[in-house]
Amino acid sequence: MTDTTQYVVGHQQPDTDAICSAIAYAHLKQEQEHDAVPVRCGEINPETRFVLDRFDVDDPAMLDDASGKQIVLVDHNEYSQTAPGMEDAEVVEIIDHHRVGDVETGQPIHCRIEPIGSTSTLVTKLYRENDVDIPEHIAGLMLSGLLSDTVVLRSPTTTSTDERIAQDLADIIGVDVEEYGRELLQQKSKLGEKTPREMVTGDFKEYDMGERTVGIGQVETVTPEQVLEQKEAVIAAMQELREERGYEFLTLLVTDLLAEDTEAFFVGNHRDTFEQALDTTVEDAQASLPGVMSRKKQVVPPLEDRMT
Amino acid sequence: MTDTTQYVVGHQQPDTDAICSAIAYAHLKQEQEHDAVPVRCGEINPETRFVLDRFDVDDPAMLDDASGKQIVLVDHNEYSQTAPGMEDAEVVEIIDHHRVGDVETGQPIHCRIEPIGSTSTLVTKLYRENDVDIPEHIAGLMLSGLLSDTVVLRSPTTTSTDERIAQDLADIIGVDVEEYGRELLQQKSKLGEKTPREMVTGDFKEYDMGERTVGIGQVETVTPEQVLEQKEAVIAAMQELREERGYEFLTLLVTDLLAEDTEAFFVGNHRDTFEQALDTTVEDAQASLPGVMSRKKQVVPPLEDRMT
Repeated sequence: MTDTTQYVVGHQQPDTDAICSAIAYAHLKQEQEHDAVPVRCGEINPETRFVLDRFDVDDPAMLDDASGKQIVLVDHNEYSQTAPGMEDAEVVEIIDHHRVGDVETGQPIHCRIEPIGSTSTLVTKLYRENDVDIPEHIAGLMLSGLLSDTVVLRSPTTTSTDERIAQDLADIIGVDVEEYGRELLQQKSKLGEKTPREMVTGDFKEYDMGERTVGIGQVETVTPEQVLEQKEAVIAAMQELREERGYEFLTLLVTDLLAEDTEAFFVGNHRDTFEQALDTTVEDAQASLPGVMSRKKQVVPPLEDRMT
Repeated sequence: MTDTTQYVVGHQQPDTDAICSAIAYAHLKQEQEHDAVPVRCGEINPETRFVLDRFDVDDPAMLDDASGKQIVLVDHNEYSQTAPGMEDAEVVEIIDHHRVGDVETGQPIHCRIEPIGSTSTLVTKLYRENDVDIPEHIAGLMLSGLLSDTVVLRSPTTTSTDERIAQDLADIIGVDVEEYGRELLQQKSKLGEKTPREMVTGDFKEYDMGERTVGIGQVETVTPEQVLEQKEAVIAAMQELREERGYEFLTLLVTDLLAEDTEAFFVGNHRDTFEQALDTTVEDAQASLPGVMSRKKQVVPPLEDRMT
């Protein structure tokens, strides 16, 4: 018997938008009398786990092999990001908010890509265009996908459409966008469960600058106080790491995703160079870097300029 | 100075849908405060010329080189079908009704592909979704693109959306869909201007069947009477051609695109075989083939079966 089910799948290493938009779009297709089921091609991360638990929704099944199946791609349209066997699948629909990738089809299909903050935003638009009611649990999933992908409407990819639709969805489930967004993003890091050493080494990079090596860690969080309140223990962990590896200096960027600011801890030599490069003052091993979000773009280049 | 104009372009060897959807979509973008102009990458065919004249619209300019420009692709999304230099252009939007092709972009863009009868149908939907008024001349262009691509709603690609939108557009300009469609398709062939010999040889193919060669011509038209009324002269031209080239037999399929039937003229040997293969009777060198539209799929295979 031919399998006429349409499998709705997001990308590998799925984030909340990939999982939630797949579930929400499969539901929309079911309401339109299609035989559609949501699936996934990767493990569920802690943030998504929180969302599925909160809205009491089952995990989508794993799609181990797409070959021979009818597939709806959501939140991606590139072979390198998708489930095994996709080259031998029949892609019947694409719903996405990324660049136009390399997926091709033999027949004309429905393909909808928009340059907006999340696929969940686009799926919400499709519910509205097709006059299909949005149940509370689906609204919760789509709001979560939207707020996760846009860092609670703060990412530069956020559009006025995302803002309007976030409010629309929040009204359905009766939550405040900011409040729920903060609760959601807190799930990302689970900072409270980490040791000071883990906070420093979790996202850590070494840079050769001239003849010296420096270490720069970063914690991106909506609850910076969970790091800042343990300052003494964190500084001690930084000094320990610096001695082990012989860094010229070591800094930890504690980036507040909502405030879009960074507080940096600093240990080691070249404090003056660090202060001049980043136009700040280190007091008691701590410096404020207002407006700094990106280690790669805003911190490394000025340090390299002055250290080499 | 950077060229911020968006050039809206259909495919090479443009048909009426490619030209008209480009003009109509550029107009929609202008109404949305974009600096957009329609262009083309091929000559205007007689049918499209009739449409542009009828609705008093200027020819789009030729796009000789797309490189470095911002491009909106309509009615295609494959590099092999587009203007020169497209690999070095910035494709900023895709509006199409064909398969998902090989065009990729670096950034997220608006890409809208739907499995419907024409790009003009989709552009009409976009006017409605964006609440932009459709002026009469634009309605005329889009109706023409729609009816040309769907052979007046008879092609198997036609959907209920095409039917609904064709009526919507026809109402705007106050024409009857069938009547205007017939007028439009008549422009395709301009049969009245052809000699009998040209009618036979215009779309003509030879087939080796066993040790014999047969010739099969086809005229696809909405005005079959323009061929059938000249039967004697056409038969004479067919006999002349058969003698020149030594065909075992020669048939001319006069296919009525609207009625979806074919009348065949027949000269030469193997009349019985022809009659049996196509389940018809040749009388006075003429046979009816109800429901026959395709030489390749409906005529050649049964003839080959019996001739070899």
